Amino acid sequence: MISVEEARGRILDSLRPGPAEIVALAEAWNRVTAQDVVARLTQPPADMSAMDGYALRSADGGLDAVLAVVGSAPAGHPFAGRVAVGQAVRLFTGSVVPDGADAILLQEDATRDGETVRVNEAVVAGRHIRRAGQDFAAGDVVIQAGRRMTARDVGLAAAANHPWVAVHRCPRVAVLATGDEIAMPGEPIPSGGIVSSNSHALAALVRAAGGEPMILPIARDDHDVIGAVADSVAGMDMLVTTGGASVGDHDLVISALQARGMTLDFWQIAMRPGKPLLFGQLGATPVLGLPGNPVSAMVCAILFLLPALSRLSGLPAAPPPVSTAVLGAAVKANDKRADHLRAVVSVDSAGRTVVTPFQVQDSAMLRRLAHADALILRAPHAPALPEGAEVGIIRLDSLGL
Amino acid sequence: MISVEEARGRILDSLRPGPAEIVALAEAWNRVTAQDVVARLTQPPADMSAMDGYALRSADGGLDAVLAVVGSAPAGHPFAGRVAVGQAVRLFTGSVVPDGADAILLQEDATRDGETVRVNEAVVAGRHIRRAGQDFAAGDVVIQAGRRMTARDVGLAAAANHPWVAVHRCPRVAVLATGDEIAMPGEPIPSGGIVSSNSHALAALVRAAGGEPMILPIARDDHDVIGAVADSVAGMDMLVTTGGASVGDHDLVISALQARGMTLDFWQIAMRPGKPLLFGQLGATPVLGLPGNPVSAMVCAILFLLPALSRLSGLPAAPPPVSTAVLGAAVKANDKRADHLRAVVSVDSAGRTVVTPFQVQDSAMLRRLAHADALILRAPHAPALPEGAEVGIIRLDSLGL
Repeated sequence: MISVEEARGRILDSLRPGPAEIVALAEAWNRVTAQDVVARLTQPPADMSAMDGYALRSADGGLDAVLAVVGSAPAGHPFAGRVAVGQAVRLFTGSVVPDGADAILLQEDATRDGETVRVNEAVVAGRHIRRAGQDFAAGDVVIQAGRRMTARDVGLAAAANHPWVAVHRCPRVAVLATGDEIAMPGEPIPSGGIVSSNSHALAALVRAAGGEPMILPIARDDHDVIGAVADSVAGMDMLVTTGGASVGDHDLVISALQARGMTLDFWQIAMRPGKPLLFGQLGATPVLGLPGNPVSAMVCAILFLLPALSRLSGLPAAPPPVSTAVLGAAVKANDKRADHLRAVVSVDSAGRTVVTPFQVQDSAMLRRLAHADALILRAPHAPALPEGAEVGIIRLDSLGL
Repeated sequence: MISVEEARGRILDSLRPGPAEIVALAEAWNRVTAQDVVARLTQPPADMSAMDGYALRSADGGLDAVLAVVGSAPAGHPFAGRVAVGQAVRLFTGSVVPDGADAILLQEDATRDGETVRVNEAVVAGRHIRRAGQDFAAGDVVIQAGRRMTARDVGLAAAANHPWVAVHRCPRVAVLATGDEIAMPGEPIPSGGIVSSNSHALAALVRAAGGEPMILPIARDDHDVIGAVADSVAGMDMLVTTGGASVGDHDLVISALQARGMTLDFWQIAMRPGKPLLFGQLGATPVLGLPGNPVSAMVCAILFLLPALSRLSGLPAAPPPVSTAVLGAAVKANDKRADHLRAVVSVDSAGRTVVTPFQVQDSAMLRRLAHADALILRAPHAPALPEGAEVGIIRLDSLGL
């Protein structure tokens, strides 16, 4: 058996980020930048007023001074002339500070009377002026390559005058469930069969990670049907299968795809839920084979598929984000397999994040998985821990998983 | 001036969740359920084996017993007969346990020899059998109405046999930037003007909250042009404007839309950055008027628009999620306005979340906002706090904002 970390490392090492494409800025949210976003202009482009008021020479702005208002410069309509001795120009937030002026008299500190204005509070040179380039200068890298764009990044790219952004292609992931016993929701269910949930759950996980899922038709337990999948996934960035990854009598997926040229590693991973994992290559398409059990499939997807999608998306290769919490109930010593306890999260009166595992951890209980807020990480051979001890957790809710 | 909380409460009180629509399960991720999702079948549908092995009568499964293997029942192919005394049926994970059997002999505890199997470890009645309905029973509510569907929920809805899900419509939000001084990215920039970033940033925020943004053309400072917006937003769930919400000489937005029948509240909110906020009604469309300053606009959008989008989406009305962190630097006593300090988040050696405000908090610095991980919440008149004190924060990164 190999460890979770080793398996994940091997998978990530074999994957490369997708190539770049250009998308309109309005489509750039949540995409991963493929190039640095470099400012195409200086912001502010000139010294700008941060307030409504009057531009004037600071030497003229002593208490009770009276100045001649020689013009008005709303934002977008700069004053064409120069502010001379004893003059003031009406300004607004975002107006360019005219030549000659070096101070702002705030509107609330001024008394306007026809074509003159009186200073009720002495001005300070430079105050309330936003200097050219205070935010960024042309040529500055405002967003680095390899970053998933937030709403704020989109705003920043706009301000830096980018109508288009170069981003990594979204990973396109084919999802294949196999088995004679499963049916898609709403379709006739075979005798003794169940409705397939893995395809939809994994496709949703792909979406949550910013990828584009493609749900393949369920492949019956037939060598030729499964083999035909090799053709249908050409050009995809990954094939994810569920089931058929056991040492039982029915792992047709392996043999059928190997007959089509799939190279394959079969790993027993020291983890629970889940244990067998396939990873290989079918032509140019990486193949990740997850367990058929829905809870095991989802936990393995969080541990292996999610980081793989990050890597394919152009993000740094990394495990799922782990945070810490205190245990709401004692946990037993762990055996040799890394465990991932389904748990609920609450906040105690001291503001601490408390994580409490479900008493029953049966890997067939999909409803319980769906109601969990987090997975508690239990390393191989981790000692028993009392209530209140700190543990590492993967938050599921905040990941959209 | 009114408080942030009062303004948010008034906005949320006036909004109603969008009506329901039906979407295919494959499109249901991140949508908000409009009805309870009720299980249409029982899961497991029958007693199922949790392991590969043999089904038998527990009375027959003592150590060294030898049984006749009378059949094989792969998952999806139940054994048609009944397991009689001295008989066993080959099973696999997910196979229906045949009538007559009440125990599972694990494959690794069995020695197969032609048509017989020997028991190497005595069986325990009921062990390794997943009982019918262990996960859920037909009629159980497996997902409640008003929940944003995670990937696991999608899997659960599939398992409960739902090809379609009733969800609230995504809020459609029109975003309007106004002003003679602004241009869209890549377009000619007026003299003294800047590139508009608010429309794109707010549209991305709408997307991050699961809504559908529509960016309206920039409205020049012209009464008729702005008034025409009233026609273009008919049928939208909200109109968000930026700029024109000051008491300066140029707030054409208010007068132009009021001339078209907009009812309006104008609030001075005791907060920083941001202060003036418009909220009103233009026909059936709620109108939220944000400041024109991009940093103020985004902070106000996080505090007011994000909860509004939640409400329109069918989620519980609530403020943005607040967590706690310890200060990485001392902060000064606050004045009468609630402050929202842009800050970076790190984790210290003790595993604590540390939040450190930028030294300069100028509301014109969009790059700094984009690089912030969180907003530190400072209540009106909050006392000075030393490094290490606990504060409430809004995490921006995890919200896709």
